[in-house]
Amino acid sequence: MMIRGVVHHQMLSLKRCCRSVHHCSALIYRQHSRDVDTVRMEEMMLRPVRGHDVRLKMLAAPVNPADINMIQGSYPILRPLPAVGGNEGVGEVLEVGSDVTALKPGDWVVPIDAGFGTWRTGVVCEDEDVMSVCKHISVLGAATVFVNPCTAYRMLKDFQALTPGCTVLQNGSNSAVGRSVIQMALALGLHTINIIRDRPNCAELIQELKSLGADYVLTEEEVMSPGLHEIFKEVPKPKLGLNCVGGLSGGLVLSNLDHGGTMITYGGMARKPLQIPSKSLIFQNVTLKGFWLTQWKRDHRKDEVQLKLMLDHVCDLMRDGRLTPPPCVLTPFHQYTHALHATVQSHQRKHVLIM
Amino acid sequence: MMIRGVVHHQMLSLKRCCRSVHHCSALIYRQHSRDVDTVRMEEMMLRPVRGHDVRLKMLAAPVNPADINMIQGSYPILRPLPAVGGNEGVGEVLEVGSDVTALKPGDWVVPIDAGFGTWRTGVVCEDEDVMSVCKHISVLGAATVFVNPCTAYRMLKDFQALTPGCTVLQNGSNSAVGRSVIQMALALGLHTINIIRDRPNCAELIQELKSLGADYVLTEEEVMSPGLHEIFKEVPKPKLGLNCVGGLSGGLVLSNLDHGGTMITYGGMARKPLQIPSKSLIFQNVTLKGFWLTQWKRDHRKDEVQLKLMLDHVCDLMRDGRLTPPPCVLTPFHQYTHALHATVQSHQRKHVLIM
Repeated sequence: MMIRGVVHHQMLSLKRCCRSVHHCSALIYRQHSRDVDTVRMEEMMLRPVRGHDVRLKMLAAPVNPADINMIQGSYPILRPLPAVGGNEGVGEVLEVGSDVTALKPGDWVVPIDAGFGTWRTGVVCEDEDVMSVCKHISVLGAATVFVNPCTAYRMLKDFQALTPGCTVLQNGSNSAVGRSVIQMALALGLHTINIIRDRPNCAELIQELKSLGADYVLTEEEVMSPGLHEIFKEVPKPKLGLNCVGGLSGGLVLSNLDHGGTMITYGGMARKPLQIPSKSLIFQNVTLKGFWLTQWKRDHRKDEVQLKLMLDHVCDLMRDGRLTPPPCVLTPFHQYTHALHATVQSHQRKHVLIM
Repeated sequence: MMIRGVVHHQMLSLKRCCRSVHHCSALIYRQHSRDVDTVRMEEMMLRPVRGHDVRLKMLAAPVNPADINMIQGSYPILRPLPAVGGNEGVGEVLEVGSDVTALKPGDWVVPIDAGFGTWRTGVVCEDEDVMSVCKHISVLGAATVFVNPCTAYRMLKDFQALTPGCTVLQNGSNSAVGRSVIQMALALGLHTINIIRDRPNCAELIQELKSLGADYVLTEEEVMSPGLHEIFKEVPKPKLGLNCVGGLSGGLVLSNLDHGGTMITYGGMARKPLQIPSKSLIFQNVTLKGFWLTQWKRDHRKDEVQLKLMLDHVCDLMRDGRLTPPPCVLTPFHQYTHALHATVQSHQRKHVLIM
C-alpha cells in the first residue's frame, strides 16, 4: 500500500477547514470531456446548516471507473454541470441541524446514492442522503464499503439460493468486487472458482487470491483447456456465475454453469459483447441478468432496513477481518490529478483520495 | 393448404389397420445420420393390451425440425436405437386395458413427453403417456396443439406479468409459434410488434400476419432503421421479447425491450449466437432466459392439473376459431420421404403426415 505525503496534507486540509466552516475545496468539472484534466480543484461555499442538514468533513473517497465515466459523459447517470466528482467515500459529521435525530457530530457516514460528489473536503447535505457506518473499521474500509463489497453481497444473496457447499464461478476475480466475492463466499461456506487473465505475475496473484480464500484460481487459457472437468469431481457445478469482463471471458463463465444456473453481469471490462449460444438458454436453461448496485439502492431507497442490514452485515465482516479492502494506492487530495490519470490508464489498482 | 391424395391413403391405412390389430407401420431409423433417407417404413408388432395399456390408431403427426435433429443425433434428447421418429401427433383410442379409467375407445389423445414415436399407424402405450384432447377441433389442430401453441402460451404466461395493453415484441413471427403468439396475444388484449425477414412476398406475409391480429409487422431492416420510435408513441415499450432466430435478429428484440424487460429465447434458426452488450444487462436490467416446452412438461409431469389446464385453454381458443393451425402441407403417411426432405430443406411450412 503506497501512501503519498498523507500526514502533511491532512494537516493542510485541517488548517483550511478550520479557517472557515463556510468553505470547502472540491474537484469540479464544468464540461464532459475525455480529458480528465478538465477536473480542477476549486473553493466552494457551504450553505449554513439548518433543519435536516448535516455538515461533513470528508475523510477519504476512492476514484472509481464509474467516476471517470461520469466526467467523460458516458455513464447512464450524469450530474448537472458544473459538478463535483466522486460517488463514494466516507465523511465525519461535524455539525447537525436542529431536526436531525439519527446522526450526531463524530459519526461516520457514507452517501447512499450515486452523484453525491465526494471529492471535496467538506459538504452540507440532508441527513437522508447519508447513512451512518460503523467506526470500528478503517477509514479505507469505510470509504470503499458501500459499492464493491455491497455489490458482491447482493449478487451472492439475491439471485440463487446458495447453501454451504455450493460453488460460485467468476471472472475478473482480481477486481475489488471479485476479491469481496472470494472473501464473502468463504464466510458463507461457498466454493469459488476464479478466472483471471494471464499476466506476468500470475503465480503471485493466484497465491494472493488463494490466501483470501479462493478454492481455485485459473487463467482464461486453463479454463478453455484443460477445462474444469477435474474441479467438478471435487465441487458441484456452479449455480451462480459472475461476469464483469464480457466477450470471451463471459462465455467461459456461462458455458461452465450448472443446468438452471444464473450468470450475473455487473461489468464489461473487455468492452466486447457477450456471445450467447441459443442452446445455452434453451437446453441448459441458464438465465442471464445484470446487476447495478446504484439502481438497487434507488429501488430500495425507502427501505432503510434493507440498506442498513446490508451495510451492517458487510461492516461486520470487515470488523472481523474476514473482508479486507482491496489493494489501494492512497493519494493526498491535492494530488488528485495523479489518481485520475492512473484510473483512466488502468483499473488494476483502486486509487483513494485522502482529504 | 396442399393435400396429397389423403383420402385414398386413409382408406389404405384403414384397410391395413383392420387386417391386424397386432401390427402397425412405423417410420424407423436404426442409426443417427444427417441423411434422412435412413428413415424407412417398417412393419412392427404391437404388444397385447393389458392393465394400463391403451391401443391407439394414429391419425396425424407433424414433421418438426426437432424430429429431424433427433434423427440426425443433434438433439439434446435422443431415443435408444432403433427408434420410431416423430414427437407430436394425435391418435384415437381403439382399445383400453382393464385398469384404464380416464380413457375410452373413441377418445383423441396426444403424447405428453417427447420421444413418443408418433410416425406410425398404431401404437400400444401406457395411459399415463398420453392426455386426452378435445374432439371439437380439427385433426390438424389436435396434431399440432401440444408443442407450438403451448410454447406460445407458456411464454406469454410465465415470464412477465402482462396485462391488457402491454406489448410483446418477437422475431420469427411467421413461425408456427410466432403465429400462435400473435393470435393468443390478441385474445389476451396484448399488442404485438412482429419482426420478419425481408423476402419477395413481404407485403403478402405482412397482410397475412395482420389478419391474424398482429398490430405491427416490420422487416429486420425496418427495425434497424427507422426503428420503433414512432410505434412507441402508440403502444408501450415491450416488457416481453420472444426470440427464435438469434444473431442480429435477437439483438433487435433485446435492444428494443423496456427497462426491466425479459427476452425469452426458444429457438436459434439463424444458427448464430446472440450478441449481448453488457450495458443492456447492467443498465437496462433486461433478463435473458430460455424456454423449452419439453423440459417444462417433464418438470410438470406429475402436475396433471397444470398440463390439462394449458391444453384445455389452448384447445378452447382453437375451438372458438381464435387460434388456427399454421399453414401446413399435408402428406399421406406413405409419402413420408417427401415431408422429411422438405423439412430438412426449409422450416417455412410445417409438413403433417396423415395416417
